[in-house]
This record gives sequence, C-alpha cells and structure tokens, in this order.
Amino acid sequence: MADHTYKVIELVGTSHDGLEDAIEGAIARAAETISNLDWFTVKEIRGTIQDGKPGWYQVTMNVGFRVLSAADLHKEG
Amino acid sequence: MADHTYKVIELVGTSHDGLEDAIEGAIARAAETISNLDWFTVKEIRGTIQDGKPGWYQVTMNVGFRVLSAADLHKEG
Amino acid sequence: MADHTYKVIELVGTSHDGLEDAIEGAIARAAETISNLDWFTVKEIRGTIQDGKPGWYQVTMNVGFRVLSAADLHKEG
Amino acid sequence: MADHTYKVIELVGTSHDGLEDAIEGAIARAAETISNLDWFTVKEIRGTIQDGKPGWYQVTMNVGFRVLSAADLHKEG
Amino acid sequence: MADHTYKVIELVGTSHDGLEDAIEGAIARAAETISNLDWFTVKEIRGTIQDGKPGWYQVTMNVGFRVLSAADLHKEG
Amino acid sequence: MADHTYKVIELVGTSHDGLEDAIEGAIARAAETISNLDWFTVKEIRGTIQDGKPGWYQVTMNVGFRVLSAADLHKEG
Amino acid sequence: MADHTYKVIELVGTSHDGLEDAIEGAIARAAETISNLDWFTVKEIRGTIQDGKPGWYQVTMNVGFRVLSAADLHKEG
Amino acid sequence: MADHTYKVIELVGTSHDGLEDAIEGAIARAAETISNLDWFTVKEIRGTIQDGKPGWYQVTMNVGFRVLSAADLHKEG
Amino acid sequence: MADHTYKVIELVGTSHDGLEDAIEGAIARAAETISNLDWFTVKEIRGTIQDGKPGWYQVTMNVGFRVLSAADLHKEG
Amino acid sequence: MADHTYKVIELVGTSHDGLEDAIEGAIARAAETISNLDWFTVKEIRGTIQDGKPGWYQVTMNVGFRVLSAADLHKEG
Amino acid sequence: MADHTYKVIELVGTSHDGLEDAIEGAIARAAETISNLDWFTVKEIRGTIQDGKPGWYQVTMNVGFRVLSAADLHKEG
Amino acid sequence: MADHTYKVIELVGTSHDGLEDAIEGAIARAAETISNLDWFTVKEIRGTIQDGKPGWYQVTMNVGFRVLSAADLHKEG
Repeated sequence: MADHTYKVIELVGTSHDGLEDAIEGAIARAAETISNLDWFTVKEIRGTIQDGKPGWYQVTMNVGFRVLSAADLHKEG
Repeated sequence: MADHTYKVIELVGTSHDGLEDAIEGAIARAAETISNLDWFTVKEIRGTIQDGKPGWYQVTMNVGFRVLSAADLHKEG
Repeated sequence: MADHTYKVIELVGTSHDGLEDAIEGAIARAAETISNLDWFTVKEIRGTIQDGKPGWYQVTMNVGFRVLSAADLHKEG
Repeated sequence: MADHTYKVIELVGTSHDGLEDAIEGAIARAAETISNLDWFTVKEIRGTIQDGKPGWYQVTMNVGFRVLSAADLHKEG
Repeated sequence: MADHTYKVIELVGTSHDGLEDAIEGAIARAAETISNLDWFTVKEIRGTIQDGKPGWYQVTMNVGFRVLSAADLHKEG
Repeated sequence: MADHTYKVIELVGTSHDGLEDAIEGAIARAAETISNLDWFTVKEIRGTIQDGKPGWYQVTMNVGFRVLSAADLHKEG
Repeated sequence: MADHTYKVIELVGTSHDGLEDAIEGAIARAAETISNLDWFTVKEIRGTIQDGKPGWYQVTMNVGFRVLSAADLHKEG
Repeated sequence: MADHTYKVIELVGTSHDGLEDAIEGAIARAAETISNLDWFTVKEIRGTIQDGKPGWYQVTMNVGFRVLSAADLHKEG
Repeated sequence: MADHTYKVIELVGTSHDGLEDAIEGAIARAAETISNLDWFTVKEIRGTIQDGKPGWYQVTMNVGFRVLSAADLHKEG
Repeated sequence: MADHTYKVIELVGTSHDGLEDAIEGAIARAAETISNLDWFTVKEIRGTIQDGKPGWYQVTMNVGFRVLSAADLHKEG
Repeated sequence: MADHTYKVIELVGTSHDGLEDAIEGAIARAAETISNLDWFTVKEIRGTIQDGKPGWYQVTMNVGFRVLSAADLHKEG
Repeated sequence: MADHTYKVIELVGTSHDGLEDAIEGAIARAAETISNLDWFTVKEIRGTIQDGKPGWYQVTMNVGFRVLSAADLHKEG
C-alpha cells in the first residue's frame, strides 16, 4: 500500500473584518478548485492602516492537502 | 524572603468558533485544577479544514503559573 | 526625486475583548499624533489570566509610517 | 459539546541505533502511563560522540495527547 | 546567455518505516511529473502516534527544480 | 464585495553579476506567465564559488500575486 | 538494556539580585522533589522595572532530568 | 474605560563589569526621562574584546512602558 | 566614568536602484537630525513588483546611535 | 583549577544511504585527527536529487570537543 | 568508495563599496590558502555608519569546502 | 587599500561561578594564541545540574578576529 504525499501551498487571506474572516476567505477560495484540503498553519499576521484603523487584515497561511493523483499535483488553490 | 518560581506548561486549545474561543477553552480547562494561572503566550496558530472551511482552530499556548508549594509543582493543567 | 523612508515603532495593544480589539486600540492611539500610518505586523500574542479566563490580550505590533518631513522623524505613536 | 484541549510534553529519546529508534523509545516510555498519545514533533537532534562514532543519538520531541479528564491533566509521560 | 531560475515547492512525505522512506516517497511522487528535480531541504519532522508507537513519520520538505521552459513553471510535483 | 486572496510562490533567482540581477531575473521569468505580480521578499542569499570568486549568486525569494480568477490559482511563475 | 528517556520541564526563576541567582533559585526549587536533575538551557531573559531599576530578573529555563521509573514521569519540579 | 497601550523601545546597555550592570545602566538612563518604565527583555548579548578580556559587555534590550498621555508617545528613553 | 547607552531605531529605506541605495537613503535621512549614528543591521529585504520588474527595493534596518545627552534620547531619525 | 573550554566546528557529512550514515561519516573523518570529540548537534538536513531519488543526504552538524592544550586549539576536524 | 565530508567556516567580508564587494573580498581571501572552496551562505548583513553614510558594509558568511585529505581539515580560509 | 576580512570561531566557555566567568575563560583561552581578538556574541546559555545546583555554566560564543595575514587564517583560538 502506497504512503501518502501532501502538498503545501502558501496563501494570503485578507479581510476588513478580522483574522478568522481572512483565514476563511483564503480557504474558501482554495476550496473552489481543490476538494481535499486538509490543514492550515498561520505564518504571519499583518495589515494595512487606513484612517487610523486597520484597513485589511492580511494573514499568510500554509495550506496542505493530500495528493491523490498526478492531476492533484498541479492543483494550486 | 524567597524568590518566586513559575512553571510553564504547553496546551493546545481548539474551537470551531475562532482564536479567542480556543484560547479561552484551554485556559478554562487548566483553571479547573490550578487556581493561580498567571499568563499565556501564543506559540502557534493552525487548524483543520473541513468542507472548504476551517474545522478546528488549534492554538498552541504556553501557560504560566506561580509555584506556591511543592504540591503546585505537580499541577499540570 | 527623493526615495521614501519609513519609520517602524513597536507598540503593545491590550484589550479584554480579543485580538482585533487590541490591535485596533494601539493603532487608534498612534493615529492621534501620526496621520500617515501605513502598515502593521503582529510580533507576539500573549495575555494575562484572571479568574481562569484571559484578562488582557496583549498584542505586540510593529507599526510603520512614511517619513514625510524631518518633523515626522520624531513622531513616536 | 465541549471543545478539546491537548497537552504537550517535552521528552528526549536516546538510542545507540539511530533516530527512529530514539523517537520510538521515548514514545513507548510515555505510552506506559498515557494511553491517548496523539502526535510528536522533533525539536532538536544531537548526540554524544564516543571513540570517533556517535554514542547516543538524542532526539528532543514534543509529544501531544488529548486531555480527556481532569486526571489526564496530570499525566506526564 | 540567460541565468537560471529555480522553483521550490513544499511537500510532506509520509511513511510507517522511517525518515528516509518518507523523504524518498515524496521525491518519487514529484518525479512522476517533473524530470529535473534538483535538491531538497527538510523543514520539519513530525508524526502521528498509534498504539504507543510512531504511526506515520511526516517529513515536510522544500523541493527545488530548475525552470527550463514556461511549461515547467506550472509543474507542481 | 469579495476580499482578496494572494498566492505566494518560492523562486530562486541566479546571476553571475550580483544580488539585484538575480532578483530581477527570477521576477522577469515569473512575469512571463503572470501579469499581476505584486511583491517579493528575500528568504536566503547564497551562492557557488568558482576559481576563488562567487560563481552564481542564488537568491531565494517569495513572490506574491493577487488571485483574480480561478485560472490565476494555477499560475505558478 | 533499555535506552534512557529524559523529560524536560519549563520553569521561570526570578531574583532581585541577578541572572545566576534566578537560575539557581528555580533549580533549587525543582530539586526539592526531583533528585536526578541533569541540565538546563536558558530560553529567555526578561524582567520587571521598578523605580528606574530592574525589579525582578526573570529567567525562563528548560530543565531536563532522566526518567528512571514510571513514577519519575509524573515528577514536575 | 480605555484599554492600555504600551510602547517598546530598543536600547543597548554597556558595562565593563558584567551583564546585570549593562542592563541596569540602560534602564537608569531611560528612567531619567520616562517615569513609567514597566519591563525589559534581553534580545542579544555581545561584547568587545580588549587585551584578551571582555572590554564592554553590550546587552541589547527591549524596554516597555505604558503610554499614559499623548506626550508619553514621544518619550524615547 | 559613566558607561554608554545606545538607542536603536527601525527604518525602512527604499530605492528603485538597488539594495545599497535603499540602505544609504535611510541612513542619510536619519543623519539629517542625528549626528552620532553608529551602526546598522539589515533585518529584512523585500520589494514591490511593477511591470514584471522590482519596483521599490525595501530594506528594513535597525540603526544604532550613542545617547550622549538626555536630548539625544528623543532623537528618532 | 582551570575551567574547560570547548571548540565547536561545523561539518557537512554526506551519504547515499541515509541520515545516520552521513552523521557517522563526518564524525569518523573528524576523529582521524581529533581524539577528544565530545558531542554533535544537527543544524540542517538537505540533499541532492538524482533520477527521482535522493542522491546525497547532506547533514550539517556542529561538532564539539574539549580544548586540552594550545595545540588542540588548532585542530579542525 | 568513501562519502564526502565538507567543512564550513565563518568569515566576515567588509567593503566600502557594497554587498557583493564584501562577499567577494572574503572569498578571495579564503581562496589564497584553500583551493577547493565550494559554496557560501549569507548569515547577516550589517555595517558601520560614518558621516551619515555607510562606512563599512560587513557581510557575515558561511563558506563551505570539501575535505579532500587530512591536511585539508586544518585549512581555515 | 585592501578591505578587511574577519574570521569567526565558536567556543564554549564553562565556569562554576557564573556567566561572565565562563565568557572570560573562553576568551582568555583564545587569546593565548590569537592577539587580535575583536568581539564576541553569546549564542546559547546552558549548564549542568549537580546536587540541586548549577554545576557548570556553559556559554556558547562566537568570537571574531581580524585576519591580518595568511598565517592568521589558520589561527583557531
């Protein structure tokens, strides 16, 4: 039985509303073309400032998914 | 007068709802058996992905508390 | 045409309510005396524990702004 | 339904034979008193040198397990 | 004469047998669709625990390969 | 209005001439197939040595671009 | 013959007098209930400020000891 | 009730006599113009060498203080 | 004789021309109001991308200078 | 009685066979000219890829040994 | 057939002219006594400031070379 | 006029008495054979524990010195 291989891609989710919203947005975007997303890790939290308030929260994430077939290897999220 | 010693334990709080909820859950759990919890630091933020959305937010934390007696040294949170 | 120089200051925002609130508080504070704030990065998330719950969320941030004049160089946030 | 909390402990496994053997030894040791061990991460690989050869491989690991009851909170591996 | 550009992708190899086997599995998988793989670096070693023993060794790797043509830019391994 | 998602890829630019030339080469290469490249960060600077002089400067970079459509998600640079 | 397993706990020693005194205090505290303490590593040095002088030096340390029996696994220092 | 904001500045204390003396010197200097200094963290320890002995111990520190008024925002230590 | 205290500020220099030019620009800017600048360290190299080429090189630096008088403590560069 | 001084050198061991073999090779090489080697730490694991398989495992290590005499100070491993 | 061992030494190259010049200077210096230099990695970029301009660029590098014979083990660059 | 090159070696100083004593011991040892030692940086502080007290303080340091001649390149401290 073959062992599994996972691929990890790096995405930056953004939101005006907060950290979870930025995370969810990027995952939802990736899920449009990859069905077997598995986990994420947060690498960096930053943001823009506009008019004395956070403008965009920007959350850099690593997102991992299992490679089921050769075709999956070219999925990019 | 004796100086203080603190003990630091590592916990992972999880939540479907968000980062603060995961943090609060782990602290509440630890507080069930340790009364003198003092501070926490977030070491890592990650999570599972289910159906194209974050499943569990997983927040790894260090939680510190003051050692008041020898018995406290064996409290683990 | 002169190139831009940016200054980065380090602030810790605190809040009883959550991470975004702590971030917004420190940025609002800095914006009282600096009009051209540009971006922030989160360096550390920690907090106090009171009565088995997070007391203060403490978010250490780097906040950057563009130096427009010599006077700006002395703005500190 | 309550969210889960995990506890992470730090162990150093040692072996004359190699890295996997050092990892397995520490996990086996922890499993003697904790039944719900879940995952490990390798933090550092080092070793002693004896007679021009590696003596003991020393693998520092974080080992995580789910806290099922208050009693589990005091399990230390 | 043009300089070379390399692309680096992140993979997680897994194995029940050990670290080298996990590394080799992920490289073999990537080699199915990319012929000019060049080097790898290990970023993280972790694993699952099952029945008091390591279940899956999980080795996160960066794998680099030279971009020979525009088509190579879309190879993902 | 939808929030933005960015994708980050890792490239290594190389040059006999210097650091900026290595950076520019990798960016130019990526720009051949991706029009909306946005920013880069330098992760590592290294190089080969030939005849007592730097041979190739090798600059590892993260390059970010905004995902405008599902098709952009598969652009790899 | 069985290989050794070590356990590492994290302590914060504090002192008004200096770094070595903070280190010694935490080790002495741990030694009250664990006889086979083996080594320590300093992870962080910080402190409070009172009246324009360092108040408490706070030295975060990892302290390691050899697990001799199942009972040792529950010693916490 | 408003939440607190803290400002963190970076100082390097120096001393011929040792680490604590270098730390105390920089804090005393900062306290001349800032009354509400709160905590410090040590970021780096280095020094010069003169005549085969340490010349100056140089301790790089982050020093934090609470911002009580807009005027405090411009205090620099 | 009093020991020296140094202050470290964080600046981001930018340039269309390259890394050294970005470094020199930020130092020149700081030197307009601080005469005793002493050293710099590069913390991060990044940049914007415009039309398939680096737009602005952005070099984040720590810049240190010796505090000669209380007035120097408020110099910000 | 004089305290001990240790010297640490950096070596890269390589092997076609695996991680332990790479570590052992470099230590054996160093032991040819230094008799009092004491410990090693693994700093980085990487390797080349040839024909879709790991070619050389390359393990970067720090190797420490005690300086017994002035002559030992010039031993390099 | 024996596997290869590499030695890594740490050098700081300096230059008034820029980063590449500092790198080249240190490599040229090392090449005077070591013929088989192989690669370098940049560990830190810093410099002195004189008259409001960078004085010396100081580039800390690791330089690696293959150990061909026991004599090579004592080459230091 | 030629630019300067510096060499950096890694030493571990040890002492029963404290951190400064460990640092001074290693520097004194290195100074026996190298006259132009210039600076040191502390990389790690650790120690052994004996009878519930620190046994040996072990301070790992990088020590730098200027290479004045080809012969200096082989000085090792």
